[in-house]
Amino acid sequence: MYPESIKSLIESFKYLPGIGEKTAERLAFSILELEDEQIELFSSSLVDVKDKVHKCQTCNTLTENDFCYICSDSTRNSKVLCVVEDTKSVFLFEKLGMFNGKYHVLEGLISPLDGVNPEDIGIDKLLDRIQKEKYEEIIFAFKPSIEGETTALYVKKILDGINIKITRLASGVPIGADMEYVDSLTLERALNDRKEIE
Amino acid sequence: MYPESIKSLIESFKYLPGIGEKTAERLAFSILELEDEQIELFSSSLVDVKDKVHKCQTCNTLTENDFCYICSDSTRNSKVLCVVEDTKSVFLFEKLGMFNGKYHVLEGLISPLDGVNPEDIGIDKLLDRIQKEKYEEIIFAFKPSIEGETTALYVKKILDGINIKITRLASGVPIGADMEYVDSLTLERALNDRKEIE
Repeated sequence: MYPESIKSLIESFKYLPGIGEKTAERLAFSILELEDEQIELFSSSLVDVKDKVHKCQTCNTLTENDFCYICSDSTRNSKVLCVVEDTKSVFLFEKLGMFNGKYHVLEGLISPLDGVNPEDIGIDKLLDRIQKEKYEEIIFAFKPSIEGETTALYVKKILDGINIKITRLASGVPIGADMEYVDSLTLERALNDRKEIE
Repeated sequence: MYPESIKSLIESFKYLPGIGEKTAERLAFSILELEDEQIELFSSSLVDVKDKVHKCQTCNTLTENDFCYICSDSTRNSKVLCVVEDTKSVFLFEKLGMFNGKYHVLEGLISPLDGVNPEDIGIDKLLDRIQKEKYEEIIFAFKPSIEGETTALYVKKILDGINIKITRLASGVPIGADMEYVDSLTLERALNDRKEIE
């Protein structure tokens, strides 16, 4: 019914997460409105991303080089390591611009129920790195979840006895949230982690 | 901050309607999860769509040939012409599979407030076609709006005196809608256009 090329473009958009038939159709038609150069760039960057981007050999952050720009930056604090669950988290923190240490990207979080064990998320590489480089603090910056806690506790247990500070992100009521929409687990955590007003 | 190729892919996704920074980032990262062949197909169909797709010489429906498959189909009823505001409407009706006549795609609807005049939406081509081919009925299948009414009335006025039936889609309360969520204009139209129960 649709011309062939529109049909395959619609199919392509449907590969993407959260994009169903209707949205894919809308997006495919919107391509017809773009300038030729925009389409060329779109088309080539799709292929480039897969061809050029890979993991940093040290920390697993996505990069086009052997080592990412953070690992290559000697002005950064190499005493603090922030462990995250995916590359996107690195870019989130970098955008924030408040953290000046190093990162380590795991390949997800431990989740025995889903069959994801420590060896599946590259824990060995992290432990190697911690043992080789002399960090003073390891920050676990995972999303607050059972998987996040499990992963943090697992690493903490292995590092037991080593003189290193191990921390996690604070969790609690988000800034600007209405109290009535905060779920009970978050509220419980916010209460337990309450801080003295100074 | 992001590797160059990821950055330009994010920019590309942001060209698309309804896609902001966050969604563009999510989509760009999801590309890394796709198979090589899926990416190749995505990349090539983007370029193909712009290269191969153009308007049918008769009715303006998007096609990869000189004439669209509907205009080329001699089994269709060439006495009824359904005038729509964009190509997507053609595919909507075709999916429905209930209309067996011909289509004519305008380039939008008349909207004096936005500076869109009859000559901007290709009214001449439509009038030429109506005068050349002998239609018995013209159906205006626009979205119910001031622009839709204006466009339909404009064409009707020009065709005044010609023996041709001119109709529009029914509008009213959508099937399955809750009465309380129906806007007042729709309700007014539904009341005015009420039909006797037989």
